[in-house]
Amino acid sequence: MATASSSTSSSRPLKIGIIGFGTFGQFLSKTMIKQGHTITATSRSDHSQLCSHLGISFYREIDGFLEAENDVIMLCTSILSLPEVVKSIPFHRLKRPALFVDVLSVKEYPKQVLLQVLPPELDILCTHPMFGPDSGRDGWKDLIFVYDRVRIRDEIVCSSFLQIFATEGCKMLEMSCEEHDKLAARSQFLTHIICRTLSEMAIESTSIDTKNFQTLVKLTESTTNNSFDLFCGLFIHNRFAKEELKNLEVALEKVKQKLHDRMNEELGPSVSRI
Amino acid sequence: MATASSSTSSSRPLKIGIIGFGTFGQFLSKTMIKQGHTITATSRSDHSQLCSHLGISFYREIDGFLEAENDVIMLCTSILSLPEVVKSIPFHRLKRPALFVDVLSVKEYPKQVLLQVLPPELDILCTHPMFGPDSGRDGWKDLIFVYDRVRIRDEIVCSSFLQIFATEGCKMLEMSCEEHDKLAARSQFLTHIICRTLSEMAIESTSIDTKNFQTLVKLTESTTNNSFDLFCGLFIHNRFAKEELKNLEVALEKVKQKLHDRMNEELGPSVSRI
Ligand SMILES: NC(=O)c1ccc[n+]([C@@H]2O[C@H](COP(=O)([O-])OP(=O)(O)OC[C@H]3O[C@@H](n4cnc5c(N)ncnc54)[C@H](OP(=O)(O)O)[C@@H]3O)[C@@H](O)[C@H]2O)c1
Ligand SMILES: NC(=O)c1ccc[n+]([C@@H]2O[C@H](COP(=O)([O-])OP(=O)(O)OC[C@H]3O[C@@H](n4cnc5c(N)ncnc54)[C@H](OP(=O)(O)O)[C@@H]3O)[C@@H](O)[C@H]2O)c1
Repeated sequence: MATASSSTSSSRPLKIGIIGFGTFGQFLSKTMIKQGHTITATSRSDHSQLCSHLGISFYREIDGFLEAENDVIMLCTSILSLPEVVKSIPFHRLKRPALFVDVLSVKEYPKQVLLQVLPPELDILCTHPMFGPDSGRDGWKDLIFVYDRVRIRDEIVCSSFLQIFATEGCKMLEMSCEEHDKLAARSQFLTHIICRTLSEMAIESTSIDTKNFQTLVKLTESTTNNSFDLFCGLFIHNRFAKEELKNLEVALEKVKQKLHDRMNEELGPSVSRI
Repeated sequence: MATASSSTSSSRPLKIGIIGFGTFGQFLSKTMIKQGHTITATSRSDHSQLCSHLGISFYREIDGFLEAENDVIMLCTSILSLPEVVKSIPFHRLKRPALFVDVLSVKEYPKQVLLQVLPPELDILCTHPMFGPDSGRDGWKDLIFVYDRVRIRDEIVCSSFLQIFATEGCKMLEMSCEEHDKLAARSQFLTHIICRTLSEMAIESTSIDTKNFQTLVKLTESTTNNSFDLFCGLFIHNRFAKEELKNLEVALEKVKQKLHDRMNEELGPSVSRI
């Protein structure tokens, strides 16, 4: 089995503990195992069966999990549950300092929570792999990995962790959490709000779909495959999202106004005021 | 050169006159020429240079155009200009009855205009090829062709015309104009209003696009390549479009409400009321 460690001098096999073994934690773990890293996991729900299939040690209790001497603790819980999860970690159980990495789809918020709650001797790397089980189905090549080295002292562990994504061919983008959130609100969140709206309308394929409408239907299915918690997290904990929702509403109103103005011109105001 | 007429017994080479030689008229004419049909055209603007390249006789004046003894007159003008264009046709100039075909992206409206304005001896076929220069770039196979045989007496000319699209592999769907408009408002028009809204927001590719956002950007570019007149026509002359715009607004409002409700639960009402 090829390991990440063989590809550059700055990487080595890691012991990675995952907190939150839902859709995304599971997805990431598979590639990490393939690369030769050792994975342990803990989660609110019992994922022990799946873990035993994957060769992952699953701990129902966080205490045993923390005592497993991981190099990296990766937080893969929902955005909304992050503070609750992080505050409940008994950090004194850690046998040695570890790099804490979060993979939340918003970035300023976990940075702030981790800086507040984590003991100062623990390193912090905030990341957002801009892909998931759907878009990363056929590998991670050319998919984007955003990260912010918030508090790094152990360079070897940090670069070994980043190497996992670099090895798969991800575009590695170092970026401030603020910059990430600004751009993501205008791209990822916008995609989600539009697809949630179309899903609320219950749009579906018709017998006379144009290709572009077919694309929209597929996009809606793919986007709403993500949990509703994730969507809520994108909105509640990205301070730029509210502004983009407002921008969307204003733009829709403007387009509507243009249509009504044109209708007035064409048909006269009495007909068009419906 | 393969001709449509060779593929079934019910088709023969046609003389087709196009009124409105814009983007879509040009697009259709190329395949018709390839199939061995003879094309003449007339339009508001002067397209004589392009026509001479394509081997099409272009008439600046409608009188000469009508005297060319076409089997089919195909109306490819904008939705908004249809009544003005049709009312200005000096029908007495026609040497013999022809099949009038429209290709407008709305269907109840041209049906009504043509039934009102055309002399009763002229046949009427209302159609909507559900594709264009973008989606039909690599051929028309499996693309949808909707038609309603509004007033047909010359079966041979009508079926020869339909055969043009069947030969290219289109899915041929006979459907009432009303049914078309109902479905198209909830698919094609919805795609257009969303893409026009995103275009109004001036969305563009970022350095951290997800695949789904990239899809949305391309969709917006492709959809707004259509003329603004076409978009206005979809709204003004499809009576179901207003309802779907309303449905879209209501759905967006509902999604927003769900987000705010969740934010209230998470943060408490004082924080979330922004
Ligand atoms: N899915 C993606 O494509 C994607 C891409 C990039 C980043 N992310 C990020 O990855 C994280 C996980 O995403 P996801 O897709 O798996 O779905 P999610 O709904 O955002 O998160 C599900 C995970 O959160 C845990 N969780 C939820 N509520 C909890 C609570 N009250 N207490 C403790 N744990 C709780 C779940 O644990 P149990 O399973 O044990 O119940 C599960 O592990 C999110 O932060 C998301 O923003 C996801
Ligand atoms: N584009 C597509 O993908 C597509 C697909 C299916 C159906 N259609 C339908 O095909 C028709 C043509 O569409 P299009 O894409 O070419 O763009 P369009 O903007 O809908 O129509 C342009 C055509 O309308 C003519 N026109 C516009 N205003 C006019 C006026 N006041 N008087 C006379 N002629 C006028 C133009 O003539 P000049 O060029 O001479 O100025 C040109 O031929 C529309 O009814 C549309 O709904 C289009």
